[in-house]
Amino acid sequence: MKVTTVTAAEAAARLTQHNDILILTHRRPDGDTLGSAHALCRLLRQKGLRAFLHHNEDATPRLAPLLDGLTAPQGFEPHFVVAVDIASEDLFLASCDVYRGKVDLCIDHHPSNTGYAREVLLDGQAAATGELIWTLAGLLGLAPGREAMHALYIAVATDTGCFCFSNTTPLAHRIAADCIEAGVDVHAVNREFFERKSHARFQIERRLFDTLRFYENNRVAAAVLERDFAESVGASGDDLDNLSTLIMQLDGVECAILLQELPQRGEYKVSLRTQKPLNASSICAAFGGGGHARAAGCTVRGDAVQCRDMLAREAVRQMEMPC
Amino acid sequence: MKVTTVTAAEAAARLTQHNDILILTHRRPDGDTLGSAHALCRLLRQKGLRAFLHHNEDATPRLAPLLDGLTAPQGFEPHFVVAVDIASEDLFLASCDVYRGKVDLCIDHHPSNTGYAREVLLDGQAAATGELIWTLAGLLGLAPGREAMHALYIAVATDTGCFCFSNTTPLAHRIAADCIEAGVDVHAVNREFFERKSHARFQIERRLFDTLRFYENNRVAAAVLERDFAESVGASGDDLDNLSTLIMQLDGVECAILLQELPQRGEYKVSLRTQKPLNASSICAAFGGGGHARAAGCTVRGDAVQCRDMLAREAVRQMEMPC
Repeated sequence: MKVTTVTAAEAAARLTQHNDILILTHRRPDGDTLGSAHALCRLLRQKGLRAFLHHNEDATPRLAPLLDGLTAPQGFEPHFVVAVDIASEDLFLASCDVYRGKVDLCIDHHPSNTGYAREVLLDGQAAATGELIWTLAGLLGLAPGREAMHALYIAVATDTGCFCFSNTTPLAHRIAADCIEAGVDVHAVNREFFERKSHARFQIERRLFDTLRFYENNRVAAAVLERDFAESVGASGDDLDNLSTLIMQLDGVECAILLQELPQRGEYKVSLRTQKPLNASSICAAFGGGGHARAAGCTVRGDAVQCRDMLAREAVRQMEMPC
Repeated sequence: MKVTTVTAAEAAARLTQHNDILILTHRRPDGDTLGSAHALCRLLRQKGLRAFLHHNEDATPRLAPLLDGLTAPQGFEPHFVVAVDIASEDLFLASCDVYRGKVDLCIDHHPSNTGYAREVLLDGQAAATGELIWTLAGLLGLAPGREAMHALYIAVATDTGCFCFSNTTPLAHRIAADCIEAGVDVHAVNREFFERKSHARFQIERRLFDTLRFYENNRVAAAVLERDFAESVGASGDDLDNLSTLIMQLDGVECAILLQELPQRGEYKVSLRTQKPLNASSICAAFGGGGHARAAGCTVRGDAVQCRDMLAREAVRQMEMPC
């Protein structure tokens, strides 16, 4: 499919030219894909359109409420399919495979977007896809309601690590200011996503630090989280979020790698974060993955220690390449 | 001294009616007192006034740069003394004792301000004193330079825990947005204050969690950090910052108490944080301290375990009081 890049104004026009809209989110969804999708759904309904979210069975307990009341009923036939915050069809849920090659519009902020949709609204500088949805609201002539603002706050706050990561933009802060003024209980969101740690989470963090492995003079740090351990402490999906960010905090670390064992034994979801100038997306691309310059992912299979060492070696190799 | 509350406009007028201004900051200074003082000093100099910061010998390595080049020369005789972010003369440095009863203007955001200055600009709703300085900049007809903006970013970001705590306001976010647009390297600040953890810090955190004591069904959590342990891991002042925030993260905890042993053995600086509706300032007031509703402090003397239990008992007592 030939992909066309559209402006925000064109995307807004496209959305209002159709009805019966289905909005897709990515597998192992984060606050941005679900928050942005929820907000977009509400905005389209404010415009009098019929819009629904495709159900997302991967949604963790703290994100699942973003789907409530908006998911497509059985037998719904969409006339327009929108993918939100999805960089590639490889990140589709299995239940969304039927829409491969059939996405009309993708709204995204990942520079690694593969251009799988017929048209794409892409801003690689945006802190979150939520910024694009906020911009679309203005172009649609809408003042988002409180629920849409609550969802947008989740989108921008989670993707910026509560306005802390290097991708934080002035717009992300201004959206947050508007959300507070719109009556969104941002502290409840902050507490849930950034402050509250379950006892299981604490045990996971301690495990990680007890088993962390360093390479290249402490510049690369990598850890493996085995499924057996996670289950033994009763960790939920939310407890396993953002662990690579934690490893990244260690003084001197320029590349943090977390291998998290998936349900299929011997398969690991990799979360990788970097400091400038190292490019996380480039490192993950070597293993068929991708993402952003400072945060990316991939999936690897094999022996945990060998995979961990392999990823660390690639990080070191790219560190030594001339910029 | 009879204290008069002034508006921001009156404070701005007062500042420009005088020259040879000395700006005081509190002992064990945080990002808000030093960041706000630095910004105010630069703004007054932009107005063509002679303004200096009183040296602050308690400044930790990561905050000390805020004093560089702005401290009062030996023999400087101020004609106007301004206290920034200081709630009480009890929080004066010993070297500032000479200014007790002599502060002309206090600019602060602590509801517990004791009214020790001749005039006070007080906004108990502000996320940080930095917001007041930013407002003063506008009233003084100034666009703050990048260094002032950098200092203001430190002020608002640290006092809100990187826009995470419940005191975060729309204005704090908008100041941050302006700072990013003014070219402040906010990520360098975020990394230094919120992301980077020294290896000493990690050991301190693990010690805390290994020795944490719970009360009242896990609703109160308290820990003691002995000076010997802190010294044994080579912890600096910066490594010991915000530890009570960490304890507060544990699921179910409504009051987090940290006792940190001071140089005088048997004396402890207490940092106490609460969830609504429990009032941290009220709990600390029972021991001669104060602060904000969600974060406050005091100093206690005696046996560590007894002090810890005493503080926890007061927290529980106030929990059980009808609201």
